[in-house]
Order: sequence, then structure tokens, then C-alpha cells
Amino acid sequence: MRVPLDGLPSRVTVYEVGARDGLQNESAIVPVEVKREFVTRLAGAGLRVIEATSFVHPKWVPQLADAAELLGGLERAEGVRYPVLVPNERGLDRALDAGVTEIAIFGSATETFARRNLNRTIEESVEMFAPVVERARAAGLDVRAYVSMCFGDPWEGDVPIEQVVSVARRLLDLGCTELSLGDTIGVATPGHVTALIGALTESGVDTGRLAVHFHDTYGQALANTLAALRCGVTTVDASAGGLGGCPYAKSATGNLATEDLVWMLDGLGIETGVDVRRLAETSLWMAERLGRPSPSRVVQALSREQGSE
Amino acid sequence: MRVPLDGLPSRVTVYEVGARDGLQNESAIVPVEVKREFVTRLAGAGLRVIEATSFVHPKWVPQLADAAELLGGLERAEGVRYPVLVPNERGLDRALDAGVTEIAIFGSATETFARRNLNRTIEESVEMFAPVVERARAAGLDVRAYVSMCFGDPWEGDVPIEQVVSVARRLLDLGCTELSLGDTIGVATPGHVTALIGALTESGVDTGRLAVHFHDTYGQALANTLAALRCGVTTVDASAGGLGGCPYAKSATGNLATEDLVWMLDGLGIETGVDVRRLAETSLWMAERLGRPSPSRVVQALSREQGSE
Repeated sequence: MRVPLDGLPSRVTVYEVGARDGLQNESAIVPVEVKREFVTRLAGAGLRVIEATSFVHPKWVPQLADAAELLGGLERAEGVRYPVLVPNERGLDRALDAGVTEIAIFGSATETFARRNLNRTIEESVEMFAPVVERARAAGLDVRAYVSMCFGDPWEGDVPIEQVVSVARRLLDLGCTELSLGDTIGVATPGHVTALIGALTESGVDTGRLAVHFHDTYGQALANTLAALRCGVTTVDASAGGLGGCPYAKSATGNLATEDLVWMLDGLGIETGVDVRRLAETSLWMAERLGRPSPSRVVQALSREQGSE
Repeated sequence: MRVPLDGLPSRVTVYEVGARDGLQNESAIVPVEVKREFVTRLAGAGLRVIEATSFVHPKWVPQLADAAELLGGLERAEGVRYPVLVPNERGLDRALDAGVTEIAIFGSATETFARRNLNRTIEESVEMFAPVVERARAAGLDVRAYVSMCFGDPWEGDVPIEQVVSVARRLLDLGCTELSLGDTIGVATPGHVTALIGALTESGVDTGRLAVHFHDTYGQALANTLAALRCGVTTVDASAGGLGGCPYAKSATGNLATEDLVWMLDGLGIETGVDVRRLAETSLWMAERLGRPSPSRVVQALSREQGSE
């Protein structure tokens, strides 16, 4: 039954990260033609923003070493955006060569994770991003900035809200057009989410520039999403079938599953354009290719439904 | 990090159903001494309401055929309530003999489920419950009424809110002291939850008499709980480790895991008295006895944490 709830947006943009964040964190190397079919199927299920791949050095992420090849043969669907992750200027050059029109960079709210993931201080990483953002914007590209570890960090524990606001403002000042607030280890709860978004808007950040990126490690991702929607956020990251996670973070599990998110949004009468059953079929198809079941509750439930009919 | 959220209660009663609703729906028959240790450990982890067993006929629920034996040898902890499920007058007699001080009955919001689960119409089931409630109240017992299929029914689909309100009011009129609104197949979303609770309070039901009972079939249980807390509900059903489900309902999976609930409430600074780590240890212990992993995300995450330390 579709029953709206006061104070929520009427439309939400689902930012699909399964093909990049998901497959990047799977141990299996997926053939390029399977990835291409995956991205095509995601668009067919109604997703309108699909992060397709990453131009990080293949040494670090061998799973996505085929980024240029993937994009080369990809038939773009009308009205669908295909951003890619870009770690540095070299990555940007490769992305521009591949004809991308939108990129994302990957920052950290904590010094420890910046050091471990980027081998830099936060300040040094911002300096590294500056020419990437400047050149991308000059070329007419939108630039999303992921901010990892916005709530807790496996080495530092709780992350102070002021610290996240400071990093977020630095990235917006560089010219980033969107920020994705990441709960990389999944420890956030709804009050913390509300407080962080409140602090960001108080510091002058428009909620239209904010996205949320929750992990379901402790089962909190949907409750946190509901809290973020109440704060006016209208872009939510999710991963088809719950693919992926973060291999650097102790005890992290996968991203919020897109199907679980869309189930809630459908019930709330919030438009996304996504057909949840068609998407679940795609996730089952991908789960077969990966040789393991999808962790998405909705995918599991819908597949049992089919099985018993 | 503990960050409260405006409009939520400062304290929540966790109504633990793992020993009854959980074990009733496991295929394994658990020895009575294991059940007794389970209940004792639940109290040790800080739970203050533990539904211990059911006095339904052993033919229907062989898993709980040892109800009298379980209670006979159970050492009650100070300040802990141990309600039991009672299906009819014969069950009440057995429960009174066993010295229980609180019971629960199990009603349905839909005709189809009443027929399948109780072999009666809704009206006939209310007639069956009437003397149970009357006699229990006369004996000084509190009586909770479960209301199943409050949101969706696998055979009837969407369940009209007026229908749930009507059944709920009938059960309160009988003298029931608490209603547990069950999303037996897990299809509810937060707007629907808010609308149902709103309709009940508009019809004159005090939110202090309401509990919510969500299933995580589609991953919605915690988001729905958050919505219910915002409506003023302060009693939430959950099952340690996510034990159990509903064997009659197509594609149903387990109850909301108590650990996942307490993780959220802890983060919101809402008092429950429950020690989530101690509870997770108990759920891991029980999972070993059942020979299968706990579906609780928190139990899984905490056990990986320990493993890597």
C-alpha cells in the first residue's frame, strides 16, 4: 500500500553504485561484457544515475581495470547519467578520453582513512583533488565528492561533526557540485544523521547538493535514509542487490541494497522511476554470475515469492 | 555516537519474543534446559519483558510442548516480566497452574488469516478470546493481544486501516491491556505505519497501549520502528538474533532482531536497559545450538569484530 508521510520529498534520485562501488569490492573479476550487460540492465530497470566504473590505477583496483573498454562499448540510454570515479589527474585524462560527462572523487573525513586509502593527509588529498575538479568543471563536467567515514571510523571511533563539516566545505569550495556523505562502516543512527545534515545546512550547504551513502553493516541504512529524507535530502546512494562493501574497513558489509531502498520509497509514494521487480531480477542474474546470494532482503523475499508460485 | 532525535521517547520497552515467537518457528526442537538457559541469559542481558513460551496445544506447536516444564524450573529475575501466549481457556488454565502473571492472545486483522491460523472468523475468534480475557483480568493478569496482518496479508493483499482499527477496538473492549500491531509478512513502510497508528489514536486508543511488531522480510523493520516511535509508541517487539518468523505466511522471514533495534535505540540515546554485546553473545550461543547463523546484522558484525581482534 502506498501511504505518503508528511515532510518527505515527492521524488528521490537513486544514485546507483553497484557497478562501481559494488563490483570494486567483490573478490571475483567480472568479465567486461557482463559488466556492460549489468549497466544496461540497470538502466532498463529505470535507474537514471549509474556510476559505471572507476579510472583508478588497475594496480589498486584490478576489478575495474577495464574501465575504458567498458565505456567504449556501452550503449547509453536516453536520459541516463553514467558518472565514473576518478582518483587523480591521470584518471581524469582517461575519463575524458572515454567521453564521460560526470565524475566523482573520493575524499575522507578522517586523517587515518585518508592516510590508508589515499596515502595522504586530508589537506594533501584536497590539494590533489583541486586540479582534477578545476579541469573537470572547466570541461563542463559535474563533480561529485564522496566523503568517507562521516560518522565513525574503525581506527578513530566517533568522527566529530565539525570535522566532517570542515572537510565538506573544503570540497565544495574546490567546485564540487555534490557531496555524498558516507557511513563507510555502517555505525550511524538516525539522530546522528539528522545532526550532521543540520550542521551542514547551518554552515550554508544547500541540501540539494547533499547525497547520503549508508552501509547496512548494523542494519541501520534504511532508518538513516528515512532521517535524511526528513532533512530534505533527495539523492540516495544504493547498490543493486547490496553488492560490495569496503574492504579496508573492519567488519564492514555491503551498501544499502537499491531494492530495499526502492521498496520503502515505493511504499511512501516517492517517485524514483525504478521498477523494483525488474531490478531484483537483474540482481539475481548478477548474483548467479558472482556465485553467491544477494544480501538484499527484498531480492531474497521476491525470489522466494517466485519460487513458491 | 549517541545523538538524540527530537520527538522520540527517552525510554523504550523492548518486548523480547525470541523464546516464544522465535523458537516456535524454528524447525529444530530445542531441549527444555537450553530454552531455560536462553531465557535466563536474555534477562542477564538486561531484557525486562521476555515472552517465555506458549500454552498452545502441542499438536500445533510441538516446539513449545514443554511450556509447563520450562516455567517450572525457571528462576525468575527481579523486575523481569515473563508473559506467555495463551490460545484459549484450556491454555489459560495451564498458564495459571504454572503461575504466570501476564498472558498474550493472538488475533488477526484479516478473515483469511483468522481462518487459516485460528480456524475461525474474526468474530468467532473474538468470542473465543472473551472468556480468556475476562478470567485472566479477574485473576489480576495483564493481557496483550497480538493483531496479525495489520498491513498486508499474503492472500488478501493490502489490509484496510479501518479494518485493523475495528479489530483493535474489539480486542481493547474485551479488556486487553496492550495491542501488538503485527506486520506479519513484513510489507509495511513508514507512511503506512504512521497512518495506522494515527487512525488508532484518533479512534481513542492511547499510544501507551500500543506495541509494534515488525518483520524484516523486506528490510523495512527498523525504518518502520522509527516511524512508530515518532508517533509516541514506546513498546517494540523484537527477537534476539532475529529468531523465528511466520511459517504460514508466504515468503516471510524473521522478526526484527533485538540487537539491530537496540543498536538504533542506543545511538538515539533511548534507554532500554539492554546490553547489546551481551545479548549478541547469547544469540551467537543460540545460533550454535540451532546450527545456523543469526540473521541479525548486528550479531554478524559484532562477531566479525571479535574474530578480527
